[in-house]
Amino acid sequence: MNRVRLGMVGGGEGAFIGAVHRIAARLDDRYELVAGALSSDAQRAASSAAAIGLARSYADYREMARVEAGRSDGIEAVAIVTPNHLHAPIATVFLEAGIHVICDKPLAVSLDEGEALAKLAREKDRMFAVTYTYTGYPMVRHARGMVKQGLLGDIRVVQVEYAQDWLSLPVETQANRQAVWRTDPALAGPAGCLGDIGTHAYQLAEYVTGMHPAELSADVTTFVANRRVDDHVQAMFRYASGVRGMLWASQVAAGEENALRLRVYGTKAGLSFDQQTPNELWFTPIGGASQRLTRGRVQSPEALHATRVPAGHPEGYLEAFAQVCSTPASPRLDGDTEPIHVASD
Amino acid sequence: MNRVRLGMVGGGEGAFIGAVHRIAARLDDRYELVAGALSSDAQRAASSAAAIGLARSYADYREMARVEAGRSDGIEAVAIVTPNHLHAPIATVFLEAGIHVICDKPLAVSLDEGEALAKLAREKDRMFAVTYTYTGYPMVRHARGMVKQGLLGDIRVVQVEYAQDWLSLPVETQANRQAVWRTDPALAGPAGCLGDIGTHAYQLAEYVTGMHPAELSADVTTFVANRRVDDHVQAMFRYASGVRGMLWASQVAAGEENALRLRVYGTKAGLSFDQQTPNELWFTPIGGASQRLTRGRVQSPEALHATRVPAGHPEGYLEAFAQVCSTPASPRLDGDTEPIHVASD
Amino acid sequence: MNRVRLGMVGGGEGAFIGAVHRIAARLDDRYELVAGALSSDAQRAASSAAAIGLARSYADYREMARVEAGRSDGIEAVAIVTPNHLHAPIATVFLEAGIHVICDKPLAVSLDEGEALAKLAREKDRMFAVTYTYTGYPMVRHARGMVKQGLLGDIRVVQVEYAQDWLSLPVETQANRQAVWRTDPALAGPAGCLGDIGTHAYQLAEYVTGMHPAELSADVTTFVANRRVDDHVQAMFRYASGVRGMLWASQVAAGEENALRLRVYGTKAGLSFDQQTPNELWFTPIGGASQRLTRGRVQSPEALHATRVPAGHPEGYLEAFAQVCSTPASPRLDGDTEPIHVASD
Amino acid sequence: MNRVRLGMVGGGEGAFIGAVHRIAARLDDRYELVAGALSSDAQRAASSAAAIGLARSYADYREMARVEAGRSDGIEAVAIVTPNHLHAPIATVFLEAGIHVICDKPLAVSLDEGEALAKLAREKDRMFAVTYTYTGYPMVRHARGMVKQGLLGDIRVVQVEYAQDWLSLPVETQANRQAVWRTDPALAGPAGCLGDIGTHAYQLAEYVTGMHPAELSADVTTFVANRRVDDHVQAMFRYASGVRGMLWASQVAAGEENALRLRVYGTKAGLSFDQQTPNELWFTPIGGASQRLTRGRVQSPEALHATRVPAGHPEGYLEAFAQVCSTPASPRLDGDTEPIHVASD
Repeated sequence: MNRVRLGMVGGGEGAFIGAVHRIAARLDDRYELVAGALSSDAQRAASSAAAIGLARSYADYREMARVEAGRSDGIEAVAIVTPNHLHAPIATVFLEAGIHVICDKPLAVSLDEGEALAKLAREKDRMFAVTYTYTGYPMVRHARGMVKQGLLGDIRVVQVEYAQDWLSLPVETQANRQAVWRTDPALAGPAGCLGDIGTHAYQLAEYVTGMHPAELSADVTTFVANRRVDDHVQAMFRYASGVRGMLWASQVAAGEENALRLRVYGTKAGLSFDQQTPNELWFTPIGGASQRLTRGRVQSPEALHATRVPAGHPEGYLEAFAQVCSTPASPRLDGDTEPIHVASD
Repeated sequence: MNRVRLGMVGGGEGAFIGAVHRIAARLDDRYELVAGALSSDAQRAASSAAAIGLARSYADYREMARVEAGRSDGIEAVAIVTPNHLHAPIATVFLEAGIHVICDKPLAVSLDEGEALAKLAREKDRMFAVTYTYTGYPMVRHARGMVKQGLLGDIRVVQVEYAQDWLSLPVETQANRQAVWRTDPALAGPAGCLGDIGTHAYQLAEYVTGMHPAELSADVTTFVANRRVDDHVQAMFRYASGVRGMLWASQVAAGEENALRLRVYGTKAGLSFDQQTPNELWFTPIGGASQRLTRGRVQSPEALHATRVPAGHPEGYLEAFAQVCSTPASPRLDGDTEPIHVASD
Repeated sequence: MNRVRLGMVGGGEGAFIGAVHRIAARLDDRYELVAGALSSDAQRAASSAAAIGLARSYADYREMARVEAGRSDGIEAVAIVTPNHLHAPIATVFLEAGIHVICDKPLAVSLDEGEALAKLAREKDRMFAVTYTYTGYPMVRHARGMVKQGLLGDIRVVQVEYAQDWLSLPVETQANRQAVWRTDPALAGPAGCLGDIGTHAYQLAEYVTGMHPAELSADVTTFVANRRVDDHVQAMFRYASGVRGMLWASQVAAGEENALRLRVYGTKAGLSFDQQTPNELWFTPIGGASQRLTRGRVQSPEALHATRVPAGHPEGYLEAFAQVCSTPASPRLDGDTEPIHVASD
Repeated sequence: MNRVRLGMVGGGEGAFIGAVHRIAARLDDRYELVAGALSSDAQRAASSAAAIGLARSYADYREMARVEAGRSDGIEAVAIVTPNHLHAPIATVFLEAGIHVICDKPLAVSLDEGEALAKLAREKDRMFAVTYTYTGYPMVRHARGMVKQGLLGDIRVVQVEYAQDWLSLPVETQANRQAVWRTDPALAGPAGCLGDIGTHAYQLAEYVTGMHPAELSADVTTFVANRRVDDHVQAMFRYASGVRGMLWASQVAAGEENALRLRVYGTKAGLSFDQQTPNELWFTPIGGASQRLTRGRVQSPEALHATRVPAGHPEGYLEAFAQVCSTPASPRLDGDTEPIHVASD
């Protein structure tokens, strides 16, 4: 079995999404992380690489692209996990070097940048994946399949929302590292909430329904004083077919953790998905009972393809399993594991 | 960073828990699987090892223990993921060879076997972990911490249940591989449902409350005709302190997927955990509102230690992420990834 | 104890809301229904009155107002439960006669009608109640109290929605009596979904927050072919204080029964109410756990005032109780009651 | 329309279940309360009767039985809502007088008392209803119908529980009137929790399944110091057919309000009902999705018979409606009603 040789740009110590990319890459054992430019700070790049046992560390992503492209065992794909403003420049360099790209969302900070990347990826005939995470859930894939099969009839109404509360207070002034860059237009791009989570909501609706709005009316707002980007957006959609829709995304919705929720209503049935309970999908035909479809029990190829554990074993089951023999403090087995457990203890 | 060198016994093609162990071992990048006796069938052991790119494959676990113990780069720990009847014999061999053991539950098929293992592990001063998966959830660990801190007051009542329905029909006669061995006393041991899931329920209650029943009354039943082991158990507990408890485990509870649920009631408060929604824990003080405590928001060391992603990102988030760039059909990036997505598409 | 002498206009056989008004009026034993003009059809008015044992039946509401106003034991208040187009004309007649009015929603079919009624009620110094039912829930009242007390801080975002699916198909062509009049502009007024349920959503948001939108953008749509009124509305709000909001109401949301839901987010906390589970209210302070506040346990005067049964006894408990000794077929005790039940049976 | 002339024994000021009986009796307008012996204290009986506008008040229930039986317009049925110890003596007197009986649960304080009542009711050919409230829910009736129709196949497992926390503390020492009599063996009978709520759980299981346990093993416990009756019971059942079951009832389950829950598992499907969300019933066929059946949408005669409001209108809807024009402080319309509400306000 050959694994894809993977490189990474960004994701040094203290970063969030880089670690997620690395875990995800290991999960199915199809990738091997062999090189990285984990930080634009040379010293930090080196120490971050050492901390995760990374073989080849670079201080500059341009150098990494050049050197890796020239090695017979060089990386085949790169994961870009930097702040948003660098997505397009970095992706461009690796595409030019003939390397596939896995880029965190949002794709770019302007429409021009995005279109240029699309053009370049096609010219170079390279894969270009944008990690819209939430499309990876089995029940999201199942939902898309149900729409395609016509189980909802003709779609009439699309409701999508993504609510968080972690920017309710001006945490960017308190050295919250994630908040600092995500509210800085120089790093995040001109869109705050809209680009950070609105894009997920928009893409999820599109992914499941297969439809693009034709017209939209949006109200983009900043609630927290002195914040430099938006932290709330509400919008209404009209689709060419007459379908109506609404999108709401907010990072000041007090009490909401990560509430990405999609509801789609058609002439035959409706469905509802909430990513906070991702193992279930609700489907209700007109005149029938609501059905709770669950991962592991639905048998569509779309869902099965993305299913690793049986029904009723929430996907966190794997993490729980990992935890039982976790060795965070040292690479040796330690006291975090469970002692021998017998009934007579 | 050094990774623990890990071996595996069992877990060949078609097995369930072996693959779970391997994913879990990769998740935090603290283990490296380097050797295995994946099947007692030599040819299957070899093909299974090849399929996962395993370096050193053995046809016999005794040989594996002997050879690995003699290598300077030999395994430091072994994961035992065979049917139950082999847990004790295999664990004994590896402990004797000075190798740490990670053993799937149940520990053994008799109390004598279990006690002998406990004694041997102490004599050899080796770690012996039994993978009671459900104790790895952050909110289970948080629950245990709350009990220890006295937030429930003195415990009065323990209610634990584990309900499944996958053995409602005589699927062992239909070549369902999991059902075949789990209902065969020669492989599973004398206990069916009791040993397969009752042990999880029993251990979860004990893990969270820190208490062992002093007396119990149990009714162990087989509902499906010609089944050779029990498929339902119900029991009542008395603890030395006067605490009362009930345990219910069933594999014929039509409609239940994997419903492991624990409720503990004390003189000050009660708590409830359902492993099918493992990111939340319910806590209700007498006279107060029910509180939905969530992984990522609770700040106890126990929970944080087991937390990888932020609040509202269910742990399946990592699997979803993995899925987006999954490459199940080949080691190359393929069409399962998302195409470039830009708003103008 | 004196009961209010109540009259009713509308609510004859086959009507929905008239029966609801009558049950509600009996519930606390503070009203006595003594007169009615239950139908504009004289024969139906008479038979409807006889069916419910009503003492004084009128064929015309004008005559009823005149006669009752002249009796020493005449009605003190009238409940108007006709189709919408008659609300204002009937209310006007009774106000002119000096009789208090309880009017079903919507108040009127035009702004002019509504303002004229408001003026007249003030001039005549009569009570004028519009039955926005959902404000009667204890937890809605508690929510309003929490907002007033500042527990949410300054409100930022209001999300309200009311989704049903009973008009997903063209049921008005199939003699569904409710659908026929509610989709007939001559009876329902110019607004369909907007006036039927959109008004509830709008009023609920206003009732709890105490705020009126200053500007709104709305998209009113008809999905079902040949329907004469709207069946879907979506709108965005701006409030003078900078607050943002959205309202969505639909009667073609396949799979939704009566999903009226309000969420309010402030600088300190958020709350959520769903009328389909009206005994609970969710409150989440920023940085804290979500709290499930329940009717019967919250102790605010607002909630207690509207609470009849203890916590955990859902309000349907009263209906269940009524059912046990119900006598639908005859006024005598019958076989629907439970037989003697003793453990030795 | 004739209403049943109803009398009541017990239910004076400060009582709980008497008021519930009266509301329930009014709900469908099939009963008229005309006489009562609301308290054994003569003065209290009189003032309680006056407070609710009751025509004929008696200081002694024996006199009431005698006098009413002799009147041509005397009561046809009596509701007995006293503490448990008086159920049998009072019921005996009214049965002897030829009057139907509606008796609150539990029927009696001993098996002998219960059997004597059963015999007497048959001899006198009078109706004898015991108000097991929870059987009045439409979805409970629907569940019973499903079992009868064989939709679950052969039942295998019955799980019923009823958990409350209101007796977690020694509230009987703090003048909590309900607690005082319910924990006094002289008034409540020898069973505390068992007779107060265990009987509901037991009866609900029997009502839905149609089965009686053949053998049982029970553990009845008192947790609160100096309490004179049990406050916790746990039991295991065996039915003649081989079915297994468990019952758990507790009044010291910290955090539980009124958690009566029934689950039944058969060879074809399982169902689950929780009285705290009484408008829904969960049904899951083996191999199928869980279905959320709802009151108002299910069309069985059993459910329809008990259904007053449409789907999605929880039964508390009627109470909310009553509240909008409630007049608790005086019999006149007052400021609790909603003012005129128009959009231009």
